[in-house]
Amino acid sequence: MSAAVGTGDGAGSLSNDIVLLFMPFPERPEWTDRIFKRYGLRVRWVNSIREDKSVISAAELGPEFDGVTLLCTYMPPPAELIPKVRFVQLTSAGADKWLSHPKYQEKSTVFCTSNGVNSPQIAEWVIGAWLSHQHHFSRYHEHMKKGFWESPFATHVQDSTSLRIGILGYGAIGRQCARLANALGMEIFAYTRNERPTPESRRDDSYCVPGTGDPDGLLPTKWFHGPARAAVNAFLREGLDLLVICLPLTAETRHVVGEEQLAILGATRRGFVANVGRGGHVDQEALVRALEEGSIRGAALDVADPEPLPADHPLWRAPNLLITPHVSWRTDVLWDRLLDIIAINLGRLAGGKPLINVVNRELHY
Amino acid sequence: MSAAVGTGDGAGSLSNDIVLLFMPFPERPEWTDRIFKRYGLRVRWVNSIREDKSVISAAELGPEFDGVTLLCTYMPPPAELIPKVRFVQLTSAGADKWLSHPKYQEKSTVFCTSNGVNSPQIAEWVIGAWLSHQHHFSRYHEHMKKGFWESPFATHVQDSTSLRIGILGYGAIGRQCARLANALGMEIFAYTRNERPTPESRRDDSYCVPGTGDPDGLLPTKWFHGPARAAVNAFLREGLDLLVICLPLTAETRHVVGEEQLAILGATRRGFVANVGRGGHVDQEALVRALEEGSIRGAALDVADPEPLPADHPLWRAPNLLITPHVSWRTDVLWDRLLDIIAINLGRLAGGKPLINVVNRELHY
Repeated sequence: MSAAVGTGDGAGSLSNDIVLLFMPFPERPEWTDRIFKRYGLRVRWVNSIREDKSVISAAELGPEFDGVTLLCTYMPPPAELIPKVRFVQLTSAGADKWLSHPKYQEKSTVFCTSNGVNSPQIAEWVIGAWLSHQHHFSRYHEHMKKGFWESPFATHVQDSTSLRIGILGYGAIGRQCARLANALGMEIFAYTRNERPTPESRRDDSYCVPGTGDPDGLLPTKWFHGPARAAVNAFLREGLDLLVICLPLTAETRHVVGEEQLAILGATRRGFVANVGRGGHVDQEALVRALEEGSIRGAALDVADPEPLPADHPLWRAPNLLITPHVSWRTDVLWDRLLDIIAINLGRLAGGKPLINVVNRELHY
Repeated sequence: MSAAVGTGDGAGSLSNDIVLLFMPFPERPEWTDRIFKRYGLRVRWVNSIREDKSVISAAELGPEFDGVTLLCTYMPPPAELIPKVRFVQLTSAGADKWLSHPKYQEKSTVFCTSNGVNSPQIAEWVIGAWLSHQHHFSRYHEHMKKGFWESPFATHVQDSTSLRIGILGYGAIGRQCARLANALGMEIFAYTRNERPTPESRRDDSYCVPGTGDPDGLLPTKWFHGPARAAVNAFLREGLDLLVICLPLTAETRHVVGEEQLAILGATRRGFVANVGRGGHVDQEALVRALEEGSIRGAALDVADPEPLPADHPLWRAPNLLITPHVSWRTDVLWDRLLDIIAINLGRLAGGKPLINVVNRELHY
């Protein structure tokens, strides 16, 4: 995410604008009323899901786009339908669907992402999976089936106070992982692609649910950076009990955790790996070997390569592993948060203030 | 826990004292050296576990007690062995083993508990069990056996932001649960037996691992109190998503969560029940019914009545339930924390300052 950029003309009104929300859920009249009253703009809402659950594509619409200047959508509509659009609020975290779109190539149109809407629930998934492993919950789940009350001394438990979490990708999700880890008493190491040497550079302007995250970047005790694998290895060599992968997937980050990295994790503190990025971040064959050898303490994957993971894939049978089917982003309040981002950005457009979640036109997220 | 009381004579030295640590683990020479150098007292250490794992009782010792003025132990030794003892550091959270002991009846001897050594790991257990439930980890654990990648839309997930935790017993454990819940974005309601109307009364002087807990009582947005069941019901009627039971078990708190309380939890927010107190706090028959009816969303019990829970007990088969065999207090660093408490209290004795974790002679903890 780039630094926020200024847009708008400083006016407190959007009365010449038409915003179209093309979203997979029905209109929320109290929201549209509030936005209309506050900024004077016309709000048009199209539910992209039909009653029979089929999806309406943007190309099927026509007059709904007439005069639209501000657009909130996931999939790009044909360019000829949206000539006047100057602001696009994406409902996704990345802009990859838009790369070849003429509107995206116009630098005067501002694109913003939904970055931050998933942070609370994904961080819950990460820390929940970590605590489940550390406290042996799946072991007790199996014992329950047999009515077996095991001796409390049969296992060891290491609590998280004074353990260390390393966060590969210190964006919105990583920052809420850090907040939870901090409450557990853990030490926090952060890794970012680019150096963050100053307080200003450590800030993150992503949307942040109030009371969560680390928007000012104050929680890590140590920062690491560098795109090369050697920089990642140096970060891992510090000794991590829990490694969280929450990077975007690029050619650079493909298999960022492979045989060599797992060997380093195993040799230092037998680190646990939690992957909430993409399946391609981890060399799954190397992970299966590390789990089978017990060189790392365990892993939790919400993503796999491919998805769905075939029923006969060896990952399913690896020990000390939790696999969930790409669900960590799920929450009943996702759309409330997205509407919150849209309201914030409309307010900033009206006030001529810097927007949040502006897409970096080189990185496309 | 009563307010801290002053002891000692203001001297910076304990050079006339002998401390005996009668503990279930071997001497830590670096600890004894440090204490000797700092306070000038003689440190004597007896490992209460023999090499064959059998336990040495205090009555089997003799000369080890000669001249001892400060004692750290779990079980009480015969009174005639410890005439000069003026300070007892218990390795337990309660003083119930000492109630009829002549030394305990001498009000001049100060007793301190190990309160606080278990807070980080028990709070991890509570929040880990809650997140496991909310994120359906046991469901995915079962799916893994079949290599089944379920549709991500097959379940609903409610993240914890804007949900409410109610903590029945706001002591050391409850305060670390609050710290974790706060990081999750939850609202915190606290219940204590006695009213805590002032900032001073909301403080807790228990041992607290640095960076954990809520020693000043700042996290709850609402406080409740009262020993009667009506007060507990009023607390539950506020609507709790997660109820944590971390009270001491007394005649007053037996079955504090029974049929009526489960009905209130079910009728408001289908609250989840986490019990890390004692099995007797919950009416287990009523809990099985509530789980089977689905009137509450689930429960997690680290304690049961009786323990071990018999293999044919209906609790084992209740849905949406996690049972663990009284393990939530387990951690590899328990003894490090206990030695930390002893070092703190020896330092305070030497400096004539108020001790931490002083036993309330009416409540016996």
